[in-house]
Order: sequence, then structure tokens, then C-alpha cells
Amino acid sequence: MTTIKTYDITTAEGARFSPHAWRTTMALAHKGLDHECEKIGFTDIPGICDGARKIVPTVEIDEAVLSDSWAIALHLEESFSEGPSLFGGEKGKAHALFINNWASFSLNPQVIRVILLDIYNQLQDKDRDYFRASREKRFGMGLEDFVAGAAEPAKAQLKGVLLPMVKTLETQQWLGGRVPSYADYIAFGTFQWVRTVSTFDLASYGGEPVQAWLDATLDLFDGLGRKERAAS
Amino acid sequence: MTTIKTYDITTAEGARFSPHAWRTTMALAHKGLDHECEKIGFTDIPGICDGARKIVPTVEIDEAVLSDSWAIALHLEESFSEGPSLFGGEKGKAHALFINNWASFSLNPQVIRVILLDIYNQLQDKDRDYFRASREKRFGMGLEDFVAGAAEPAKAQLKGVLLPMVKTLETQQWLGGRVPSYADYIAFGTFQWVRTVSTFDLASYGGEPVQAWLDATLDLFDGLGRKERAAS
Repeated sequence: MTTIKTYDITTAEGARFSPHAWRTTMALAHKGLDHECEKIGFTDIPGICDGARKIVPTVEIDEAVLSDSWAIALHLEESFSEGPSLFGGEKGKAHALFINNWASFSLNPQVIRVILLDIYNQLQDKDRDYFRASREKRFGMGLEDFVAGAAEPAKAQLKGVLLPMVKTLETQQWLGGRVPSYADYIAFGTFQWVRTVSTFDLASYGGEPVQAWLDATLDLFDGLGRKERAAS
Repeated sequence: MTTIKTYDITTAEGARFSPHAWRTTMALAHKGLDHECEKIGFTDIPGICDGARKIVPTVEIDEAVLSDSWAIALHLEESFSEGPSLFGGEKGKAHALFINNWASFSLNPQVIRVILLDIYNQLQDKDRDYFRASREKRFGMGLEDFVAGAAEPAKAQLKGVLLPMVKTLETQQWLGGRVPSYADYIAFGTFQWVRTVSTFDLASYGGEPVQAWLDATLDLFDGLGRKERAAS
């Protein structure tokens, strides 16, 4: 019997909000694997597992400790090959990496420009100083100044960034085709990140195909995504 | 014995330059299928096949007439299943559609802003009036004015648009993984389009991983892509 434990960061209200961790949470459900989740804060990460972890998702699968959502997805696909496939073979996996990189390097950098302050406002108290200091260093200015200058230009880009997803969902129900694949969980991570920390309506930038897809994805696995508390 | 004939538009120098048609040309080679190409101009399209064709690539495969590169790729994968797979299964195909839409709706619209006038200048004489009139109607201004205003902003976007491709090629040799897939031919269509009509160095916006990939892709199938005359 496999024992799986994940470490995931949450808001002050206990909502799991990491976009990368949601990729993993959905992938585990896709494989039919139960997991126990230890809810932590950003500032707890140095104290988990072997002390060498820098990010969530971090998961313990029996004796193995893994970080990085893509590495975890590859491990799940290989180690639990009897469950439904996440990638559908080598080319499906290779093409999914493009979608993974689209989400991580095209979509998420625009989204963070809109919701950075919302994330901060939802954090657990113990995480706030760390988050402010690390993000202000990364962006070279105060959180408030960053969002004030970046949010509107980012919104002007979002429709274009989402267009490949919109056009694909005009042709097929899921990014994975007739059934969801890991590609859907990649994109869902971003939408769930927004949903759990902000009232920003990201799906409206994709229009009806994306809204319908998001509703359907929130319903997967007995409403796993929808059960997570949305920000209000 | 299957007989395949393609119709493709060319420059005044006879170079095949359509990005969509290159997706098909490479897909045919991937399947090991010979084809005869009838080189035409934009203004010849109404006179080919059944007279109902509006775009290239248009191909005749035995009795079937097909237009639209994605539809052709699906047909090739299904009808010539004994050849090397273009997609590697249903999920590989579904994920490739995302990459297809990224190229068609994110990448190519930026590229056209840089090379529109270069295309015009390379056209066969018979195509020039048609091309100028149709594109000036589409963009709402003269070709020269369009490029004067749009080329530099487009160049400022290109590095970001190419980033998912760059990051993917930092991890794996091809967009298809360890061997080329249709995803590679999708992206190649854009680079070959630029190469045959312009001296604009698109690959430089992707850096070393994209340059290495482009060189390798130009070498595929005994240098099929590289044999096509580059603009100078």
C-alpha cells in the first residue's frame, strides 16, 4: 500500500493556493491515489522532510521525497502506470511540457502582476514578512507599487496569452482531448491559484470556452477543486 | 500506390513560403510519403481542384481533396498509420493542437507584423495587387504604414512569445521529445516562412536552444527544408 503525503502552503483561511501544487493534487486524483496533505506556510518549507526543500509541491511517496510539479508528474506516470495515463505516451508527455512552460513562463507571470497583493493579503500572518521581502526584492519595488503599475498592462495581455487555450477548447472539450490529461491540470493550477486568493475573474479573459472548461474542471473528482474555499 | 499532389504558393524565385503548407510538407516527409508539388500563386487558388479551395496547403490524396494543415495532418495520421506517428496517440494529438494554436494565434500574428512587406516584395508579379489589397483591407492601412508602426512593437513581444518553446527545448531536443513530432513541423513552418521571404533573424529571439533546433530541423529528411531557397 503506497503512502503519499504532500506538503502544501495555504492561506490564513486554510485554502491551498499554490498553482504548482494544484497540478500535483489533480494529478494524484487522476491516478486514483489518496494522499494526506500537511498544510504549511512558506516559512515552514525549510523545516519539512530532509530540510533541503525550497518549494511546494513537495511530496513523500513511500521512501521517496520529490519536489517540482513536473518531476512529480513524471514519477506518478512511471510508478503508477496501472492508473489512467496523465500523458498518453512519450509524445503526449513531450507536448505537455510545452503547455507546462506556457503556463509557467507566459501565463503565470502576467497573472502574478494582477494578484500579487491579493496573495499577500490572504497569507498566514507568519508568512507575510517573508513574502513581502522576497517579492519586493524580486520585483525591485514595493508590492503596492508593483501591482499599481503592472496590473492593467497585464490585463491587456491576458486575452492574447490565453488565446491558444481558447482556440483549443473551441475544438475539443479538454486540453487532453476527449478526457482530461495533465495539460488540463497545468492550466487549472493557474485558475485555482487565482480563485483561492482573489476575486479577479481570469476566466472572463478566455470567454465561454474557458469558463465552461473551468466549471467542468472544478467538478472533477467529486468537486475536488470546487471544495477549496474561494476568496471573497 | 498512393498518389499525393500538393498545391503550394511560391515566391517569384520559386520558393515555397507558406507556414501552413510547410507543416504539411514536413508531415508528408515524416510519413515517408512522396508527393508532387504544383507551384502556384495566391491568385491561382480559385482555379485548382474543385474550385472551392481558399487556402494552401491543399492536397489531393488519391480521390480525396483536403485543405487546412491540421485536417491534413489528422488525415495522414489516420490513413498512413504504418508510417512513423506524427502525434503518438490521442493525448499527443490533443496537446499538439494547443501548440498549433500557439503558432497560429500567438506567434504568427507577431511575425507577420515584422515580415509583411518582405512577403509582398518576394511575391510573383501576378499576386502583388491581390496581396496588397487583401492585406491592406485586413489591417486597415497601407502595408508600408503597417510595418512601420508594428514591426518594433512586435519584436519587443517575440522573446516572450517564444519562451515556452525555448524552455521546452532546454529540456528536450525536439518539441516531440527524443524524436521530431508534428509539433516540430508546426513551429518549423513559421521559421521557414520567415527564412524564405526575409532576412529577419527570428531564431535569435529564441537564443541558442531555438537556433540549434532550427538547424537540426532544416537538416531533416536529407535537408528538405534547407534546400528551399532562403531570401537574401
